[in-house]
Amino acid sequence: MRRRSHYRGQSSKAGLPPGTLVHTGKLPTTGISTVSVMTYSPQNIHEYRPDNLDQCIPIKGTSDITWVNVEGLQDVELIRHFGDCYGLHPLILEDIVNTSQRPKLEDYGDYIFIVARMVGFHKDHGIETEQISMILGPGYLLSFQEGIEGDVFEPVRERMRAGRGRIRSLESDYLAYGLIDAIVDGYFTVLEDMGEFVEDLEEELAEGPTQQILKRIIGLKREIIFMRKSVWPLREVTAALERGESKLISDVSRVYFRDIYDHTIQVIDGIETFRDLLSGMLDLYLSSIGNRTNEVMKFLTVIGTIFLPLTFLVGVYGMNFKHMPELERPNGYFELWGVMVALSLLMILYFKRKRWL
Amino acid sequence: MRRRSHYRGQSSKAGLPPGTLVHTGKLPTTGISTVSVMTYSPQNIHEYRPDNLDQCIPIKGTSDITWVNVEGLQDVELIRHFGDCYGLHPLILEDIVNTSQRPKLEDYGDYIFIVARMVGFHKDHGIETEQISMILGPGYLLSFQEGIEGDVFEPVRERMRAGRGRIRSLESDYLAYGLIDAIVDGYFTVLEDMGEFVEDLEEELAEGPTQQILKRIIGLKREIIFMRKSVWPLREVTAALERGESKLISDVSRVYFRDIYDHTIQVIDGIETFRDLLSGMLDLYLSSIGNRTNEVMKFLTVIGTIFLPLTFLVGVYGMNFKHMPELERPNGYFELWGVMVALSLLMILYFKRKRWL
Amino acid sequence: MRRRSHYRGQSSKAGLPPGTLVHTGKLPTTGISTVSVMTYSPQNIHEYRPDNLDQCIPIKGTSDITWVNVEGLQDVELIRHFGDCYGLHPLILEDIVNTSQRPKLEDYGDYIFIVARMVGFHKDHGIETEQISMILGPGYLLSFQEGIEGDVFEPVRERMRAGRGRIRSLESDYLAYGLIDAIVDGYFTVLEDMGEFVEDLEEELAEGPTQQILKRIIGLKREIIFMRKSVWPLREVTAALERGESKLISDVSRVYFRDIYDHTIQVIDGIETFRDLLSGMLDLYLSSIGNRTNEVMKFLTVIGTIFLPLTFLVGVYGMNFKHMPELERPNGYFELWGVMVALSLLMILYFKRKRWL
Amino acid sequence: MRRRSHYRGQSSKAGLPPGTLVHTGKLPTTGISTVSVMTYSPQNIHEYRPDNLDQCIPIKGTSDITWVNVEGLQDVELIRHFGDCYGLHPLILEDIVNTSQRPKLEDYGDYIFIVARMVGFHKDHGIETEQISMILGPGYLLSFQEGIEGDVFEPVRERMRAGRGRIRSLESDYLAYGLIDAIVDGYFTVLEDMGEFVEDLEEELAEGPTQQILKRIIGLKREIIFMRKSVWPLREVTAALERGESKLISDVSRVYFRDIYDHTIQVIDGIETFRDLLSGMLDLYLSSIGNRTNEVMKFLTVIGTIFLPLTFLVGVYGMNFKHMPELERPNGYFELWGVMVALSLLMILYFKRKRWL
Amino acid sequence: MRRRSHYRGQSSKAGLPPGTLVHTGKLPTTGISTVSVMTYSPQNIHEYRPDNLDQCIPIKGTSDITWVNVEGLQDVELIRHFGDCYGLHPLILEDIVNTSQRPKLEDYGDYIFIVARMVGFHKDHGIETEQISMILGPGYLLSFQEGIEGDVFEPVRERMRAGRGRIRSLESDYLAYGLIDAIVDGYFTVLEDMGEFVEDLEEELAEGPTQQILKRIIGLKREIIFMRKSVWPLREVTAALERGESKLISDVSRVYFRDIYDHTIQVIDGIETFRDLLSGMLDLYLSSIGNRTNEVMKFLTVIGTIFLPLTFLVGVYGMNFKHMPELERPNGYFELWGVMVALSLLMILYFKRKRWL
Repeated sequence: MRRRSHYRGQSSKAGLPPGTLVHTGKLPTTGISTVSVMTYSPQNIHEYRPDNLDQCIPIKGTSDITWVNVEGLQDVELIRHFGDCYGLHPLILEDIVNTSQRPKLEDYGDYIFIVARMVGFHKDHGIETEQISMILGPGYLLSFQEGIEGDVFEPVRERMRAGRGRIRSLESDYLAYGLIDAIVDGYFTVLEDMGEFVEDLEEELAEGPTQQILKRIIGLKREIIFMRKSVWPLREVTAALERGESKLISDVSRVYFRDIYDHTIQVIDGIETFRDLLSGMLDLYLSSIGNRTNEVMKFLTVIGTIFLPLTFLVGVYGMNFKHMPELERPNGYFELWGVMVALSLLMILYFKRKRWL
Repeated sequence: MRRRSHYRGQSSKAGLPPGTLVHTGKLPTTGISTVSVMTYSPQNIHEYRPDNLDQCIPIKGTSDITWVNVEGLQDVELIRHFGDCYGLHPLILEDIVNTSQRPKLEDYGDYIFIVARMVGFHKDHGIETEQISMILGPGYLLSFQEGIEGDVFEPVRERMRAGRGRIRSLESDYLAYGLIDAIVDGYFTVLEDMGEFVEDLEEELAEGPTQQILKRIIGLKREIIFMRKSVWPLREVTAALERGESKLISDVSRVYFRDIYDHTIQVIDGIETFRDLLSGMLDLYLSSIGNRTNEVMKFLTVIGTIFLPLTFLVGVYGMNFKHMPELERPNGYFELWGVMVALSLLMILYFKRKRWL
Repeated sequence: MRRRSHYRGQSSKAGLPPGTLVHTGKLPTTGISTVSVMTYSPQNIHEYRPDNLDQCIPIKGTSDITWVNVEGLQDVELIRHFGDCYGLHPLILEDIVNTSQRPKLEDYGDYIFIVARMVGFHKDHGIETEQISMILGPGYLLSFQEGIEGDVFEPVRERMRAGRGRIRSLESDYLAYGLIDAIVDGYFTVLEDMGEFVEDLEEELAEGPTQQILKRIIGLKREIIFMRKSVWPLREVTAALERGESKLISDVSRVYFRDIYDHTIQVIDGIETFRDLLSGMLDLYLSSIGNRTNEVMKFLTVIGTIFLPLTFLVGVYGMNFKHMPELERPNGYFELWGVMVALSLLMILYFKRKRWL
Repeated sequence: MRRRSHYRGQSSKAGLPPGTLVHTGKLPTTGISTVSVMTYSPQNIHEYRPDNLDQCIPIKGTSDITWVNVEGLQDVELIRHFGDCYGLHPLILEDIVNTSQRPKLEDYGDYIFIVARMVGFHKDHGIETEQISMILGPGYLLSFQEGIEGDVFEPVRERMRAGRGRIRSLESDYLAYGLIDAIVDGYFTVLEDMGEFVEDLEEELAEGPTQQILKRIIGLKREIIFMRKSVWPLREVTAALERGESKLISDVSRVYFRDIYDHTIQVIDGIETFRDLLSGMLDLYLSSIGNRTNEVMKFLTVIGTIFLPLTFLVGVYGMNFKHMPELERPNGYFELWGVMVALSLLMILYFKRKRWL
Repeated sequence: MRRRSHYRGQSSKAGLPPGTLVHTGKLPTTGISTVSVMTYSPQNIHEYRPDNLDQCIPIKGTSDITWVNVEGLQDVELIRHFGDCYGLHPLILEDIVNTSQRPKLEDYGDYIFIVARMVGFHKDHGIETEQISMILGPGYLLSFQEGIEGDVFEPVRERMRAGRGRIRSLESDYLAYGLIDAIVDGYFTVLEDMGEFVEDLEEELAEGPTQQILKRIIGLKREIIFMRKSVWPLREVTAALERGESKLISDVSRVYFRDIYDHTIQVIDGIETFRDLLSGMLDLYLSSIGNRTNEVMKFLTVIGTIFLPLTFLVGVYGMNFKHMPELERPNGYFELWGVMVALSLLMILYFKRKRWL
C-alpha cells in the first residue's frame, strides 16, 4: 500500500494549473491544522495560539523574531491564507501541501524556501518520512509540518523557553538552523535503530539462512534506499546555506550550517555503510544456501555410495541360479557380512579422507 | 518488433544530405496532420483551424500571443512549409520529423528549439514514447506532436479558455512551461502505473518463483531503461531554461521552470527507486530458486537415507545361503520389523535435529 | 587472432624515434593507395586522380575548395610526401598510418587534425573498425581511409556532384561535417544490425538456455565494448567542434556539428541500452540454468520417493524367513498391490500439492 | 556490540543545544585526561606537565612554539576550560569530545581546526579508530587524543628532543605536518597487517572453501569499509593544506603537506586494491562451492549409474518365475558375473571419457 | 610474498623524520649503483662514466645538455650526494629511494620532479613494476632507475648517438619526453603479452572449466589491477606536461607530450578492455559450472528413472507369496522382459522429448 500511494499525489494533480493546492499527504490525519506562534527576543519570549486565523499573524515590524509553526496540512485554505498574508509564491504553497518533495532550497530574494524531511524507523513499518517546509525571512520563520509523528521541535522550544544556548540572541536564520539540526539529530536515532536491526539480522543469519531473513535483508535494503532519497539532497541544501549566498544567512550562522553539513555527510556515510553491510549479508546468505545444498548432496552421496553396492551384493546372493558355489559354503553368510562390513569401513575411510564426513 | 525498429529510422536516412525531411515515426497513423491555432491575450482568446495552409499563419506583428499546434507528422511538405514561413533552420525541421530525438534544448538566438518526450505505460506493451517538439519565439510558440496517444495538451487549452491561472497574462515562455509541465505530469502517472505493476509482481513472487515472473521482472527493468532515456536528458533542458540564459525566458517563468526541474528530478528519483526495487526482486528470485533446489534435495536425501538401508536389510534376508541362522528364528521376521522401525525413527529424529525435516 | 593483434602494431614500434612511419593496419589490403582529388566551388566541380604523385597536389591559392582523399595506407612514402608538401607535424603522419588511434581532435593552429573511426558489424566477425583521419585547413581537406570496407564517402561525393544541399557553397569545415556525418550515420546501421542480432538471441534464449547462446551473449557484450571504445571519444571531438574554438570552424557549421554531437550521444545511448539488454539476458540465462536444475531434481525426487519405498516393500516379501504370516494369506499378493497403488497415489497427491508435479 | 554503539553517541545528544559537550567515545578508559606541554625553539626545548589546570597554559606572546597535547577526553570540564582559555568556537569543543567525526578541516581565520583519525588493525577486533583533533594557530598547536591506543606522537617527540630534522626550526604548521605524517605512517602499518591477513586467507581458501573463511572475507571487507571511511576524507584535508589557502600554512610546509597528500592517496589506492582482492576471493569462494557440488554430484551419479543397473540384473535372477531358462544353465551364475563385470568396465570407460572420473 | 612486502617499505619508515633516505626497493639487486653521463648538442655527443663520484658532475654552465642516469638505488649515500650537489628538496630524495611511489609530477619552480613506473609482464610472476624518477631542469635531466629489468633507455641512447630524430637538437624537456615515451611503449608490449595470455585462457576455458583456469582468471584480474595503479596516474602527469604550465616545457615539446597522453589513454583503454573480457570469462566460467551440474543431474535422473521402476518390478516377482498367478504362466518371464523393455523405451522416448538425452 505504501509503495502504491507513493506517486499518487502527483498524478492526481495532472491537468490542474500550477499553484493549485491539493494536499497529497500519504497518511491522513484527523483533526484540523494547529497553528502556534512564538515571538522572542533575548529579553522575553511569548507563545500563543492565534484565535482568529482570518487575520494575518503579524511577523514583521518589531525587533522581536516571530516563529509561526503549522502542524497538519489538511486545511488547504489555511495555507492559501498564509500565502496571501505574506505574499508567498504560489509554487511554494503547492510544494508545502504536496508532501512528496525532495529536500531543496529555493532563494526567492526576500525569503528562502527550505524543504527537509524528517525520518522515522519502525521495525515493522520501515522508514516513514514527513515533509518539513520552512520559509525563512528577515525576522520571521514559518514552518509547516505534516504532523504525523510526534513533534521533533519540542526540544528546541524547551531550549528557547529556558533561554539556554544562543538561540534567543541570534537571528531567525539561527532558529532555522536549530530546526534543521533537530531533524538531522533524528537521523542519527534512525541510524542507531537500524544498526540494532542489522545486528539482529546478522545474529539470525549466523544460525542459518531462511527465506524469511532474506526478505528482511532485501526489505531493509529498500528502506535504506528510501532514507537515502530523503537525506542525500539535504547535503546540497546545507552546503548552500553554509556558502551563505543569501543576505539572510549571517556569518555567525554559517559556521553552524557547516556543522549540519558535516552531520548530513556523516549520516550519508552511515547509510552507505549499511548498504555495504547488507550487501555483505546478501553474499553470505547466497553462499550459505550453496553450502547447505552442497552439504545435503554430500550426505546423500555418502549414503548412496555405501548402500547401493551392498544392496547389489545381497541381491547377488538372492538369485536363484542352480549352481552358486558361495551359497553352499557353510559360513558363506558370515563371510559375506565380513566382506560387507569391510567394504563399508573402507568407504567411510575414503570419505573421511575426502573430508565429506 | 519494437526493438528492431528502434534505430531503423536513422539508418534509412544514411547518405541523404543533412536537412532532408523523412518522417521516421515508429507508429504509422492514418490521416493527415491537424493544425490548430490559438491566439490569446489577457482579454481575449481566439481558436481556429486554418483553411488554407498554403499561406503562412501569421505569428508576429500583434500584441497577442500565437500558439500553433501540429498533430501528426506524416505530411513532410507541411513541415517544410512551416520552416519556410518562419525561417527555421533545416536541422530543426529534420529533428521534428525524425522522432527519435533525445530531449534537448537548442538556442538559435531568435528562437529556442525544445524537444521533450511524452511517455505512456501499458501493462502489455510497456513504455511508449512520443516526441514533442517546440519552437519558442517572441510572442509565439509552435508545437509538433507525433499524435499517437491522446492529446496531453487539452487540459492546458481548457485552462486557457477558462482564463484560469496566469497563463493568459504571461508571455509565450510561460505557455511553453505549461506544455512541458503537462508532459512531466504524465510521467507521474506512468510512475504510479509502474508502481502498481511492481507491487503485483511482488505479490506473485511471494507465492513462488516462476520463470514467467522472472521474464516480467527483466522486461520491466528494460522498460525502465527506456523511460530513463526519455526523462534523464530533460533535466538538462529544464536546468537550462531555469538558468534563463536566453532573453526569451523571463524571470517570472524561471521560477516555474525550476519547479519543472524539481519534478523531473523527482521522476528520475522514482525511476532509480524502481530499478533498485527490481534488483532486489531479482536477488530474491535467484535465491528462491536456490532455496527450492535445496529443499528438494533435502527431501530426496531424507527418503534415500531412510529407504536405502532398509532395502539393503530386507535384501540380506532374501539371500539363499544354506546357513542363515536369523531365518530360522520363529519371530525373526517380526524382530527385523522392529529393528527397521527403530532405525527409521532414529533417522527421522536425526533429520529433525539437523532441521532437514 | 583479432584480439592478439590488437596491440601488436604499437609494440612493434617500441624503440623507434617518434614520427617514424610504420603502417600498423590490422587488415592487409593488396594494391597501392588510391588518391582522388576534388576541387569545387558553388559554380563548378572538378574531380581527378593525379598522375604524378611526386609533385605536390595544389590545395591553396584558389578560391575553390580542394578535397584530397587517400584510400589505403600501405604506401608510407606517399604519406610522408603529403607531410612534406603541406608541412604536417610528424606526429600527425605517425597517427595516420598507425591505425589504432582513438577518435581525437588536435588543433595545430593552421589546421585541425581529426581522427574518427568507421564501424561495421558482421554477425560472424563482430565489430570491425577503420580509422579515418582528416586534416582540415583553410580551403582544403585531406582525408585518409584505411580502405578496408567500401567507401562511405561516396554518397557525399554524389551530393557534391549533383550540387544538392549546401555542401558546395560552404567552407571546407562543412565538408568535414559531411564526412563525419556519413561516419556517424554508419553507426546507426550498426545499431540496427545489432538490434536484430539481439532480438534473434532473445528468441533463441526463450526456447531454452544453451551454452552456445551464452557464448554469443558474452561475445556480443565484448563487441559492444569495442564499439563503445570507437564511438565514445567522438563525443569530445564533436563537442570541441561545436564549441568552435578554432577560427577554421564557422558559426554556420557549428550548428551542424551540434547535430552530429546529438547523434553521437544517441548512438552512445543505444550502446548503453544494448549493454543493459544483454545484462538482462545474462541474468535470464543464469536463472534459467538454476530453474532447469531445480526441475530435474524435482523429477528425480518424485521418482525416487515413489519407487524407493515400493522396492523396499517388495523386498520385504522376498525375504526367506521361516515364519512370515502375510505370505500365507491367499490374497496377500493382491492386497500388497492394493497397498502399493494406494501409497503411490498418496505420494502423487502430495507432490501435486507441493507443486512438484 | 561495536556496530550497535556506532551511532549511539550522536543520538544520545538529540535535543541538546549545539555546543553541548558530551563525550561519546566508544571505548571507555579509566583515569583522567593527561595534559603535556612542549615549548620549543631551534635553540631550546622545554617539556612539562602543568600542575594547575585552572589557569590557562600560556601559548602566545613568546617567540617559542607551544604544543599542548591532551590525552583522554573524559574530562569534559577540562575541554571546556581550554575552549574558554583560547576562545575556541563551541562547535569545535563539541567535535573534539564527540569522537565520531569524519576527518575534516575547518578554517576559522585565526586558527585552523583539523580532525584526523588514527587507525589500528587487530586480527581479532578488526579496525579500531581513534579521533585526533588539532587546533593550529600562530605559534601554537593544541592536539587532543582519545588515548585508547598507544601514543603515536612519541616518535615525533623523540625527534624534537634530539633536534633531528627541521621540526624545531620551523613554524607550528610544520609540527602539525609532523603529527599528521605520524598518523598516515600508521596507516601503512595497518595496510601491511591487512596484507598478511589477506594472504593467510588466500592460503586457507586454497585448501578448500569453508563457511568460516567466507565469514572472515566478508568481515574483512567490512573492516576495509570502516577504514576507508576514516582515510578517504583526509585526502580533502591534506589537499586543502597543500593549497595553503590559510596564512597559517607557510610555503615551506606546503611541499610537505603535498607529500602527505600523496601518501594518503597511496593508502586509498591500497585500500581499493584490498577491496578488489577480496572481491576476487569471494568469486573464487562461490565458484569453489559450485565446483564442489558438481564434484559430489558426479561421484553420486557414477556410483548410481554403475550399481542401479547391476542391482536390477541380480533382481531379475532373483525372481521366482516357473520357467527361467538362464537359471538352469550350469554356468549361468558365472556368465552373469562376466556380463556384470563387462558392463561395469564399459561404464567406467564411458565416465573416463566424459572426464567424470 | 609479493603482496606481503607491498607496503613493508613504507611502514618500516614509520617514526623516522621526513626526508630520511631508506631504500625500499622490492627486489634487492647485487652490485652498486651505476652512473652514466651523456652531454650532447646538435653537433656533438659525449658519453662517460664518472670516475670520482665525490665531486659533483657539472650539469650547468655550458650550452650542451647533460643527462645523468643512475641505475640501482642501493647506494643511498650517492643519492644524498646528488641531492647536495644540485640542491634537491629532501622529499624528492626520499621519493627516489622509496620506490613505491605512484606516478606523479611535482613542480618545484627551478626543476620538475617526475615519477613514472616501468611495467613488465611475465606469465609466471605476473606484473612487475619499476620506479623511474626524473628531475628535469634547464639544460639537464637526472634520471634514476631501480635497475631491476633491462635498460629501456638504451634505444633512446642509440638514437642520440646516431643523431636520428630531433632529440639532439631540442631541449632537455624533449629528452624527458623520449624517456617517458620509451616507458609508455613498454606498456604496449605488456598489453600484447597479456592479450596472448587472455587468448590462451579463452581457449582452455572453451575446453571445459577447471578450478585452475578460474584461479588464473582471478590472478590475471589482480595483475591488471596492479598495472592499472601504475599507469592510471600517468595520465595526469602527461596532461600536466601537455598543458605546459612550467616554463621548462617548450611549446614544441607540448605536442609530443600530448602524444604520450594519447598513448596513455590508449593503454588505459586496453586495460579496461581486459577487465571487461575477464569479467565475461568469469561469467562464462560460473555458468559453465552450473551447466555441468545440470548435465550431471540429468544423467543421474535418467538412469534413476529407468532403473528404479524396473528394479521394483523384478522385486515384485521375487516375492515369496503363496499365490502369485503371474509366476505360474509358462511365458511369464519373457512377458515381463517384454513389459520392461517397452517401459524403458517409453521412458527414453519421454526423455528425448524433454531434451534430457
